[in-house]
Amino acid sequence: MKILIDTYGADRGEEVLVMGALRALEKRDFTPVFIGNKSKIQAELKDKKDQFEIIHTDEFIDNNEDPARAIRRKKNASIVMAYNMAKEDGNSGILSAGSTGALLAGGLFLAKRIEGIRRACLATSLPTKNGVTLLMDTGANMDTKAEYLEEFGLMGKVYLENVLAIKNPKIGLLNVGVEEHKGNKLTKETYKLLEKSNMNFIGNIEARDLLTGKANVILADGFDGNIAIKTAEGILSLLSKELKDVFYKSLANKIAAGIIKNDLKDMFASYSADKVGGAPLLGVKSYVYKAHGSSNQEAIENAILGLLDYMDKKVIEKIEGEIR
Amino acid sequence: MKILIDTYGADRGEEVLVMGALRALEKRDFTPVFIGNKSKIQAELKDKKDQFEIIHTDEFIDNNEDPARAIRRKKNASIVMAYNMAKEDGNSGILSAGSTGALLAGGLFLAKRIEGIRRACLATSLPTKNGVTLLMDTGANMDTKAEYLEEFGLMGKVYLENVLAIKNPKIGLLNVGVEEHKGNKLTKETYKLLEKSNMNFIGNIEARDLLTGKANVILADGFDGNIAIKTAEGILSLLSKELKDVFYKSLANKIAAGIIKNDLKDMFASYSADKVGGAPLLGVKSYVYKAHGSSNQEAIENAILGLLDYMDKKVIEKIEGEIR
Repeated sequence: MKILIDTYGADRGEEVLVMGALRALEKRDFTPVFIGNKSKIQAELKDKKDQFEIIHTDEFIDNNEDPARAIRRKKNASIVMAYNMAKEDGNSGILSAGSTGALLAGGLFLAKRIEGIRRACLATSLPTKNGVTLLMDTGANMDTKAEYLEEFGLMGKVYLENVLAIKNPKIGLLNVGVEEHKGNKLTKETYKLLEKSNMNFIGNIEARDLLTGKANVILADGFDGNIAIKTAEGILSLLSKELKDVFYKSLANKIAAGIIKNDLKDMFASYSADKVGGAPLLGVKSYVYKAHGSSNQEAIENAILGLLDYMDKKVIEKIEGEIR
Repeated sequence: MKILIDTYGADRGEEVLVMGALRALEKRDFTPVFIGNKSKIQAELKDKKDQFEIIHTDEFIDNNEDPARAIRRKKNASIVMAYNMAKEDGNSGILSAGSTGALLAGGLFLAKRIEGIRRACLATSLPTKNGVTLLMDTGANMDTKAEYLEEFGLMGKVYLENVLAIKNPKIGLLNVGVEEHKGNKLTKETYKLLEKSNMNFIGNIEARDLLTGKANVILADGFDGNIAIKTAEGILSLLSKELKDVFYKSLANKIAAGIIKNDLKDMFASYSADKVGGAPLLGVKSYVYKAHGSSNQEAIENAILGLLDYMDKKVIEKIEGEIR
């Protein structure tokens, strides 16, 4: 299997994408195809370069461009080339840490949507203590409709049943209260649709239960899902800084910190986004994974391993089967 | 000044409301008027009962009722009595830890909106490290319009200038990215309105900056604002539990924890909602403060002190002056 890796878009540059792919290669067999600036990619690969393919391009799409327009016009942008190659050979996955808008627009205009699915969405695995929770959507769609959220639920169910072998996953709806009548127009409409569906709908989930593992899928408009995960990231990073301040406050604290430092690091690492590394873009006809712009090597490694699982289990075909 | 205290609605019952008011009385002069079950209130007050007024009622509105309907029909519900009394004497504040929906419906139907203000909103003070940040709205309005958010900004500005003496407060907009074109229909429209306004609009604020003090007011639809604060609460409570697990992991960790325990407690306390205790319901013609259902005595004490400041500074008149 080939993984087409867009080497533009990561905050730390080509290095994390190339080294992340090398790390993934130690665990799984696949062919990385790096799409980007050839000399920079080669500089990272050093003497190992013959194990890979490199497709050179100097063009890319950044966060400040209109994604739909850029996807249509920039034929040689790394992400456009990746989508076209994936479509041509039919058996390649795409990994990008670049613009979410461009990745989504490419999915819609180049890969195209799965028949019967009206919107694609990002399914982000949350770092829960108990079990697995996917938050869907985390930013692909703003101003979502109830029927789209229902489709996200269906795709999440198929994904979890196949990739993670979770039978009849629990589907919840992100809301401001647990009671049925709570929420905005969107959540009230979605609640009614989900109640009538064949899914294992367990009702509204409050944002304070985001990481407590109550549901396997938490459905949300992309705006709200994004607010939720970014709030969570912000608080985690703030508290980790605050803890450091406490540790350096006195000599006694420094000594105490020395004792518990490693256990604390492990605890924070269990909530790190790098553990998962990326999120599948569900609903399009190519296997696409979005990595964080701020990804490190570990995040890219884990994103590629996740993407390979997603491809192995032929989730796109399974979703097509479920929709028909 | 009288503070009309709805003694129904707090998860821990009459005790936190009565004892919280007693604590506030040690710092400020006012008359608590407890509205609720007389014998339960008296049981908490014990021998101090002659320093207060008690208005007996057995009726109240809970979270499962349709708030607008209940406000209209339940003439003797504690919150309805509070609103009617506040209106009658014109110089009393209202504190409630009960149903937000009922508080809002009472504001709209009994106190009425300030002329020129189309929606009331809850302005929650966030526990930031640097300076003051109000998140507006945190749950009074679902499906907000851009013009309402602009009005929230104006009310936030008047509140901060008067109650906290912050000159020309920085107004931000909660969004999924800092770029102007990011977001949903609501945030894009609101961005344009705020740009044209006379307020000190500093642009979009990402949810990861909720507690970093970048803006003095963060404007949000009540659904989104509620998702953000509840996510933050959830993560704070989760991490505080996780830390306890780390501390009990080994004897060495227990010893280390003993050393830093107090500093850690202080750190977590600085992020506790109890520090502020409540949020003003801005936009209605009565001085109303909403306390958390899960409030403890400290939270109620601080909510009452905040409410007294809000009344002292005659913020409602100032908002009326600003609107004209």
